[in-house]
Amino acid sequence: MEGWSYAVATEAEIARAGNAAAKAFHDLASRGPEARAKLLDRIADLLDQQAGELAEIAHRETSLPMPRLTGEVGRTSGQLRMFAGLIREGSWVDARIDLGNPLRTPLPKPDLRRLLVPIGPVAVFGASNFPFAFSVAGGDTASALAAGCPVIAKAHPAHPETSQRVGELIREAIRELHFPAGTFSMVHGGPEVGRRLVELEQIRAVAFTGSQKAGRALYSLAAARPTPIPVFAEMGSVNPVFVLPGRVRQSGAAVAAGYAASLTLGVGQFCTNPGLLIGIGPEFDQLVAAVAEKLRSVAPGVMLTREIRSRYIDGCDAVMSAVMAEPILTPDGSQSGASPGLYRISGKQAIESREKLEEVFGPVGLAIVCQDAEELLAVASKLDGQLTATIQADEADQTLRRKLVPILAGIAGRVVYNGFPTGVEVGPAMQHGGPFPATTDSRHTSVGTAAIFRFVRPVAFQDLPDVELPQELQDDNPLGIARLINGQSTREPFRRLLPQITQL
Amino acid sequence: MEGWSYAVATEAEIARAGNAAAKAFHDLASRGPEARAKLLDRIADLLDQQAGELAEIAHRETSLPMPRLTGEVGRTSGQLRMFAGLIREGSWVDARIDLGNPLRTPLPKPDLRRLLVPIGPVAVFGASNFPFAFSVAGGDTASALAAGCPVIAKAHPAHPETSQRVGELIREAIRELHFPAGTFSMVHGGPEVGRRLVELEQIRAVAFTGSQKAGRALYSLAAARPTPIPVFAEMGSVNPVFVLPGRVRQSGAAVAAGYAASLTLGVGQFCTNPGLLIGIGPEFDQLVAAVAEKLRSVAPGVMLTREIRSRYIDGCDAVMSAVMAEPILTPDGSQSGASPGLYRISGKQAIESREKLEEVFGPVGLAIVCQDAEELLAVASKLDGQLTATIQADEADQTLRRKLVPILAGIAGRVVYNGFPTGVEVGPAMQHGGPFPATTDSRHTSVGTAAIFRFVRPVAFQDLPDVELPQELQDDNPLGIARLINGQSTREPFRRLLPQITQL
Repeated sequence: MEGWSYAVATEAEIARAGNAAAKAFHDLASRGPEARAKLLDRIADLLDQQAGELAEIAHRETSLPMPRLTGEVGRTSGQLRMFAGLIREGSWVDARIDLGNPLRTPLPKPDLRRLLVPIGPVAVFGASNFPFAFSVAGGDTASALAAGCPVIAKAHPAHPETSQRVGELIREAIRELHFPAGTFSMVHGGPEVGRRLVELEQIRAVAFTGSQKAGRALYSLAAARPTPIPVFAEMGSVNPVFVLPGRVRQSGAAVAAGYAASLTLGVGQFCTNPGLLIGIGPEFDQLVAAVAEKLRSVAPGVMLTREIRSRYIDGCDAVMSAVMAEPILTPDGSQSGASPGLYRISGKQAIESREKLEEVFGPVGLAIVCQDAEELLAVASKLDGQLTATIQADEADQTLRRKLVPILAGIAGRVVYNGFPTGVEVGPAMQHGGPFPATTDSRHTSVGTAAIFRFVRPVAFQDLPDVELPQELQDDNPLGIARLINGQSTREPFRRLLPQITQL
Repeated sequence: MEGWSYAVATEAEIARAGNAAAKAFHDLASRGPEARAKLLDRIADLLDQQAGELAEIAHRETSLPMPRLTGEVGRTSGQLRMFAGLIREGSWVDARIDLGNPLRTPLPKPDLRRLLVPIGPVAVFGASNFPFAFSVAGGDTASALAAGCPVIAKAHPAHPETSQRVGELIREAIRELHFPAGTFSMVHGGPEVGRRLVELEQIRAVAFTGSQKAGRALYSLAAARPTPIPVFAEMGSVNPVFVLPGRVRQSGAAVAAGYAASLTLGVGQFCTNPGLLIGIGPEFDQLVAAVAEKLRSVAPGVMLTREIRSRYIDGCDAVMSAVMAEPILTPDGSQSGASPGLYRISGKQAIESREKLEEVFGPVGLAIVCQDAEELLAVASKLDGQLTATIQADEADQTLRRKLVPILAGIAGRVVYNGFPTGVEVGPAMQHGGPFPATTDSRHTSVGTAAIFRFVRPVAFQDLPDVELPQELQDDNPLGIARLINGQSTREPFRRLLPQITQL
């Protein structure tokens, strides 16, 4: 944080942001999708224009390499444009129309029309490990603004200047396009500011990416409010990789190389970092040795902050000794950087000490060597909720694969086959989420177009005159969106054949 | 509860139900939609076959009239068949396929496929006021089973024998169709059994219809679990009815009659009972007098239980004196039945004492007489979350109506126009829910096809071979469902044009 300091937000500043957001909310919802899409596009353009400069600031603050950071800016502007496209197309509001029937007996059937509307101001917590894509203008902010929700972002203390610059750029777009100022606010600070933000009366949902401890604390705080609100906390996981026997034999060396590369990508600072490697017997043990060999040649990397580095070194020590894992490669604590670690444990031990198997944030892997297929399945079924679970298999592994897939689909948000979990695609079919403790709400994703569904709720209108209905629900379908009419999907307009009758 | 007693479930019985449900879960998910649809249809058939007998038991337990109860059995079997139809059609799983592109640079694009899968065993709390449609085989159970989730139902102590009979009938269908026993269990008991059920490790979601106090308590309990789970509590609301000046003039008598009828329907024991009537000035005051006139001619009704009746009489007294409302018609406490009540308060008073404006369960209305349109809008914008909000308006009211609609859409799940909120249609476009304290999760409905979304979560599969994918995601679309392929909705099958390449 050399050369740049920030002021921790005061209680009064946070309260002002809350009032401004509540005020902006009504204005924002009434502006319609095209205006919001333009805002998202404009933020994306400004990000792209300043990509080089922004990446340099982030590089200074996070030590992440420049190509990764410029790439991340592109990913961030891409996400903003993706949500702009989604709301321009418009069908995402899930418009449903059940036509009335005044002749129904014993009672006339009312005309019912339902769509998704924004939930209200959203608090977004920037992540340490993605200064752009999961921070101030990241997927949480993009999806909240797309839905029509104002945002109050909390900058992550690991990259305050980057956050400040990105925040200013969002405010610039807001001014240019004459959106109300409360559409977006940003605050700096630590856990205390975060707590105040979650307790802020006007906030209606919280999006967070970070540690299990912090995510769970915010969740509990939000549930204890006089008006409880949802918390979408993505808290990372150990992301198990299962390598089945046929795969070990056919492609062991390639899997070992791929695993080592995925484990050390970005100095292991990904939520989808593959912290567990699981297989069967002595042949798998040879694969583990090959992983160690690969890891020895990986140069130590600089982690995001000194605290994260200390927690990594201490965490390896604490967690691996708690489960009595045998060290194959101990991370080097004497260097200023962080070198990878690799540990080994039997399937039996893993099952017995499963409650102590916590995530260590950083490039450390734990190999679980099972006796047989049965033990491997037992390990799988005892795992906590995960963002991802990976199967490496060969056609010879079909029997075991068939048993493993449903178990992993039962614990993870995304099941990866013959790949590695790092690298999260951004699109309609992505699921970046998973059962607790991977997230606090397994029913949602924080990446991809479906992330918008975190910030909306349905409203139905009964017998409301066409002129008062949102455009998405009007008879002639002026936006041309896909709608469910009497349970059937169609983009056709219609005319009411019978006049409505009142129920009096 | 004459002539029928039940045993409160023991801790061991609840634990057994949890184990059985967890065991049934995997079996249930693997059976596919057609098998689950058959189960729902069979439960519906058994309900219809025994409708008369079931209604008689419920009549004895709840004092609700026979025609209402036989009608409610029909509604309940109708809901079961509706969910059977929904899962047979199959598109509800929201299948999304982002096709891979091995030629993409710098990295190949994986094939990603996402669908909704069941969340796990669900605890269903039966409601006192709907012994069929919101109880053991009601919408919560129907939607959970449709999704593929086993159910543990807690019978409501107000109608234990009805619950027991319906539960037996579900178990009969399960046996006939060879589903695992843990697909459905039922327990009897009070709040303590309820708490144990919510804390049961295997439970993954809770559906509840009842009071704010109980719903909020279960929500807090679920949030404090080691693994927090969602609670979908529908807790009722005061359901304001706004009568605009033009409407008062044009149709005042009809509105007064309609309001009185809606308020006293089922002795006021509906979650959508219209407890607030809001208008402007002396003309509206005349309408209120006409309501009182109508209410005086309503015969006292027998409420569901004696406790509910006492809480109604005491509640009218406590809440109305807390807000210093003027009594127009005081409910008669000397009779064994419950007679309607009507109170009056100014708009100014209502705004000042808004925090004390609690729901009183029963046929009591509070008229809020505002000075002008501005005050009426202020009252509207200060209301808590509601299941429904109603506008009675005439074409002459267009200006005020246009301002009121977005305010009410902001606080309610359903906005009713020139009708009354009692009478909840069952269909794709229904939203029976609303912001807290109407429910604990405004993002969901407990009535209509969308109720199924409470009990599912998305899973994505990356590069998984077609043969291991759920049918809904296979290339040739064997179920013929609507799917989002690269963001476009289609029912077409496809062939992968390029062979997949591995990423190693």
